[in-house]
Amino acid sequence: MKGLVYGGPGVREWKEVPDPVIEQPTDVIVKMTATTICGSDLHVLKGDVPETPAGTVLGHEGVGVVTEVGSEVENIKVGDKLLLSCMTTCGRCANCRKGLLSHCLAPEGASGDAWAFGHYINGTQAEYCRVPYAETSCYRIPEGVDDRDAILLSDILPTGFEIGVQNGRVKPGDTVAIIGAGPVGLSAVATAGLYGPARIISVDLDDNRLAEAKKFGATDGVNSGAVDAIDQIKALTNDGEGVDVAIEAVGIPPTLQLATEIVRPGGHVANIGVHGKPVEIAMEKLWTKNIDITMGLVNTTTLEMLLNLVAAKKLDVSGFVTHEFSFDEFEKAYDVFADAKNTKALKVYVH
Amino acid sequence: MKGLVYGGPGVREWKEVPDPVIEQPTDVIVKMTATTICGSDLHVLKGDVPETPAGTVLGHEGVGVVTEVGSEVENIKVGDKLLLSCMTTCGRCANCRKGLLSHCLAPEGASGDAWAFGHYINGTQAEYCRVPYAETSCYRIPEGVDDRDAILLSDILPTGFEIGVQNGRVKPGDTVAIIGAGPVGLSAVATAGLYGPARIISVDLDDNRLAEAKKFGATDGVNSGAVDAIDQIKALTNDGEGVDVAIEAVGIPPTLQLATEIVRPGGHVANIGVHGKPVEIAMEKLWTKNIDITMGLVNTTTLEMLLNLVAAKKLDVSGFVTHEFSFDEFEKAYDVFADAKNTKALKVYVH
Repeated sequence: MKGLVYGGPGVREWKEVPDPVIEQPTDVIVKMTATTICGSDLHVLKGDVPETPAGTVLGHEGVGVVTEVGSEVENIKVGDKLLLSCMTTCGRCANCRKGLLSHCLAPEGASGDAWAFGHYINGTQAEYCRVPYAETSCYRIPEGVDDRDAILLSDILPTGFEIGVQNGRVKPGDTVAIIGAGPVGLSAVATAGLYGPARIISVDLDDNRLAEAKKFGATDGVNSGAVDAIDQIKALTNDGEGVDVAIEAVGIPPTLQLATEIVRPGGHVANIGVHGKPVEIAMEKLWTKNIDITMGLVNTTTLEMLLNLVAAKKLDVSGFVTHEFSFDEFEKAYDVFADAKNTKALKVYVH
Repeated sequence: MKGLVYGGPGVREWKEVPDPVIEQPTDVIVKMTATTICGSDLHVLKGDVPETPAGTVLGHEGVGVVTEVGSEVENIKVGDKLLLSCMTTCGRCANCRKGLLSHCLAPEGASGDAWAFGHYINGTQAEYCRVPYAETSCYRIPEGVDDRDAILLSDILPTGFEIGVQNGRVKPGDTVAIIGAGPVGLSAVATAGLYGPARIISVDLDDNRLAEAKKFGATDGVNSGAVDAIDQIKALTNDGEGVDVAIEAVGIPPTLQLATEIVRPGGHVANIGVHGKPVEIAMEKLWTKNIDITMGLVNTTTLEMLLNLVAAKKLDVSGFVTHEFSFDEFEKAYDVFADAKNTKALKVYVH
């Protein structure tokens, strides 16, 4: 088969690799019908994730049809169409049993604090994929959800929802600010509405992205490059005290610091961003504020619920895919996604 | 009357000051029968709290008997014995109505993010005290709770409980580490048991304090000066992954950083410490950990409940008072409390 292979920092190639085979009795093999590219694939490619060996097939999002099942797999049959969660999770370890799937302790699970596909094991950007712990790592796709929508639910939608909206405890009537209008920030924008906030403020350096965010449900946009950005955000709250929930979806110190500056006393800061360095938190100002700062990897425990919402047309995710490619155009898909600043790519749909 | 007056950085005197009078119709005047000294009084004295003017009577903890009531006060009568909350709270503003008493917006309330007694207005370390918003800032003391116990409930017990134990979401079976075994840390130790944790680990640099913590309910003590302190703490957890809840009760960067290093994935870090500078948080390691970091001022919304537990002998606070003084020995009381390292003072009971 062919797969998109990481060849060391900066090197990627769509090339012939060995077909995956059943290795564990809980595995299935899936013929991929659709996949996409995530910002963390770019991190791996840059060489920022040294634990990923050269030769690894990248990707952790996708949809496919089962071609082979391991001997212990009972509830999945050859021919089933499945959505792959970005988290392969054994369902049996202490963390899985508590719902902390993102910290699955199994060797091909989160291995304590990460994800496996395209990181420790071969991923989804290929013609076929071996899925470990298949019964607890895949979801059936309801009627009416096509591949183009389904691939958004492997990672970005549940990440924005669980780590942004749910950790931030968005509730009816809240004013919510979401910093960063990339795919994950927009996923938080799109799912924040499920809890009935009064205002959803998108905050980004790029006015085009702010305009885009309104299509996903943002009521307001504030350019964080403005010198009075904090005042602009606070002016959008009922009493000028700050937002109820500030969601950070960038992953650099200034944006997390901004989140702590715009949150009201008693409010919530939910970090989604993938950080590469420490962040100085102004505890001398914040210790009195009765806030919390949450952070974490997506558990994908809401994935089935989100699928059902898409199927029921209660959650419109049609705006995320900006570009479409066939599998043999995979390298071009990477070029377009990596150059999002110019191409305006959000998610690329590879099928 | 006499009061303990802040005279500018480093200067304090027990001296004659004007008797307080009713200024607002919601005030009462209380003849103090007991009070105590808090670490934040020492901060004011050092000059760390520049908004406190010289001439202010210090203190925000105490018990007294009502001598005069304002014209709008209906539920308090002359002669009533009351416990004063450290938070004067109007009960009417948007924040009070949400239970966020620590951010009462009234002029003599928390003024947004602080406390008023001994900070913006004259406090409780005096023969008499004017209590603003008296009906919503005082509590009747149940039978069986004497002044010596009651003064601990103005601030330290609810602070340890609400900002440490409740924010940290301690639950049955948890392993809880409490960093810092001063009065507030010990208040968290003493109240953590209310939620049935399996282990309460006290962490401090002073072995004497660790021994003291066991009298308040700690099951284990770890000296944080040990090079393998983190390993020692993790070795006390069921699976070596870290504690479920790490409560910080010191207020310096290394102790908050320690809290983030000993907490397990999916756990909680509850900051109680009063910080004077920013803290570098290792977001590059923590973003995957599914933890939260909480912080805030006490709301004292649990004060009545804690009083009832003390009355019912379900919460033993008898170990906090280490020294006893009369009001005219107030300066000596400060000397002893400020030199806690040598005097082993926890709380001084002034009556």
